[in-house]
Amino acid sequence: MISFVQLLDFIGTFAFAISGIRLASAKRFDWFGAYIVGLATAIGGGTLRDVMLNVTPVWMTDPVYLVCTAFAMLFVIVFGKHLIHLNNTFFIFDSIGLALFTVVGFDKSLVLGYPFWVSIIMGTITGAAGGVIRDVFINEIPLIFRKEIYAMACVAGGIVYWLCLQVNLESYMSQIIGGATVFLVRILAVKYQITLPILKGENDEEANGKE
Amino acid sequence: MISFVQLLDFIGTFAFAISGIRLASAKRFDWFGAYIVGLATAIGGGTLRDVMLNVTPVWMTDPVYLVCTAFAMLFVIVFGKHLIHLNNTFFIFDSIGLALFTVVGFDKSLVLGYPFWVSIIMGTITGAAGGVIRDVFINEIPLIFRKEIYAMACVAGGIVYWLCLQVNLESYMSQIIGGATVFLVRILAVKYQITLPILKGENDEEANGKE
Amino acid sequence: MISFVQLLDFIGTFAFAISGIRLASAKRFDWFGAYIVGLATAIGGGTLRDVMLNVTPVWMTDPVYLVCTAFAMLFVIVFGKHLIHLNNTFFIFDSIGLALFTVVGFDKSLVLGYPFWVSIIMGTITGAAGGVIRDVFINEIPLIFRKEIYAMACVAGGIVYWLCLQVNLESYMSQIIGGATVFLVRILAVKYQITLPILKGENDEEANGKE
Repeated sequence: MISFVQLLDFIGTFAFAISGIRLASAKRFDWFGAYIVGLATAIGGGTLRDVMLNVTPVWMTDPVYLVCTAFAMLFVIVFGKHLIHLNNTFFIFDSIGLALFTVVGFDKSLVLGYPFWVSIIMGTITGAAGGVIRDVFINEIPLIFRKEIYAMACVAGGIVYWLCLQVNLESYMSQIIGGATVFLVRILAVKYQITLPILKGENDEEANGKE
Repeated sequence: MISFVQLLDFIGTFAFAISGIRLASAKRFDWFGAYIVGLATAIGGGTLRDVMLNVTPVWMTDPVYLVCTAFAMLFVIVFGKHLIHLNNTFFIFDSIGLALFTVVGFDKSLVLGYPFWVSIIMGTITGAAGGVIRDVFINEIPLIFRKEIYAMACVAGGIVYWLCLQVNLESYMSQIIGGATVFLVRILAVKYQITLPILKGENDEEANGKE
Repeated sequence: MISFVQLLDFIGTFAFAISGIRLASAKRFDWFGAYIVGLATAIGGGTLRDVMLNVTPVWMTDPVYLVCTAFAMLFVIVFGKHLIHLNNTFFIFDSIGLALFTVVGFDKSLVLGYPFWVSIIMGTITGAAGGVIRDVFINEIPLIFRKEIYAMACVAGGIVYWLCLQVNLESYMSQIIGGATVFLVRILAVKYQITLPILKGENDEEANGKE
């Protein structure tokens, strides 16, 4: 069982790192910069979570995340122009990572004694904050603030996970159902192009005219 | 007494969240993005402070900040185009929040045993860092680095607070005077358009020509 | 010995702060904004390191970093347009700071019981992360992700430092050799314009056409 979770963790880390490295390459970052953006995408969410939970960031306890990101880097260097044909695969991998990271973050917070609403937020941060750090590094408005159901899939999965625990489902069962929820919400939202409404404020005209 | 401070805390959180949500809406963020920017504006400063003070971020101990931000969100959605008529009210609310957050941050650091100059900085971070995070999220140069007396009001209030304690004023009296200083400096600076000088460096011409 | 290290620390802090303040002035920040960007450049890396190591950020234990940044600020205000003639001096000072910060960060992590690879990363973060925070504040893509050998000099120095310890060299000797490596790699890379390769991804054409 542990090795299956670890496998998912590798897949998720790899997919998150790939997403950061590809965006960095589009901005003509050098190899170091691309590696750091990939790494930050993969471990940024977990690090922010652990700093707020006041525990040692998980990447400092196991070099596997650095190694995974190095493989992702190698992968992008070697396959370069052909990566675009793998977009669907990356999307599935990314969604697996999102699901696993959410469950891991939720779980860790709950074990540390935090209430369920903190755990849901920590699950969401674990899954989605890495992408925000990535977008800050490449100097773009964070994608998840403007497009697609991404973090909301984590929130949904966290709520379902918590509901499972409330009805006394076993822990591993709740994890699977919670993670599957994240995965399905994400996949279905993209497939059916479901998005959240844009917030229309008082300055809509100004926003169109400006910049 | 506690409920009065709590009321000020709600008002400040609400006003800070409103400022983040409005700017996010001008950038056409979706509802989730706008909520997160509002939340980060409201709790970002306190979270940064608590992470550096090595204590649990305050929003993780009480869901009231999440709820306050939700109300701010609802408010922006419902009143949309009419918000601009409330600008003066928001400005007063924002200044109340700035004053209270500064005092709370100063106080917390002092109680934890830090020297006065760390406490002044922590008060300033509590009041002003949320706005910096907000501006990073919407991909703009932080407003407080370029315009208006904002963080300097926190510094001034922190110094006055500390001087009050030095002359053995009672704690609650010092808090009121310190907070009032923040509030007044902020209000007066805006009313009389007092700003800090721009730093003129060696590359002024270049800066004008570029971008 | 201690006073010599402290001298290097002041020089490094001063040089890092100058770099932040000059960039802030090019963006027409006000005095407060320029000071904060200078301070963040100088202490940002160490603060991020200490937050992840779960110890009190070093600037909170000694006001010398605030004072050093104030001197840097004064220096830029007074010498303004003439600073450009000191570029070579600043470059040497900056490289000294980079070397010292890397060694200090490596050392601190090792003393706290972390493995060598965490220490190398922490040394690199101490040396290079302040510049990333600076560039986020001025809303530019972090320079070290795109140009010049900078963080890689820290990585090289950290590895050499660790190798010295592996062959049982004395601690202070290892520090000197490690620091000298950072300094030399940085100096030589700039002198001979050695850079890392740009990561060429699938979307090179798009990147050229866009923005």
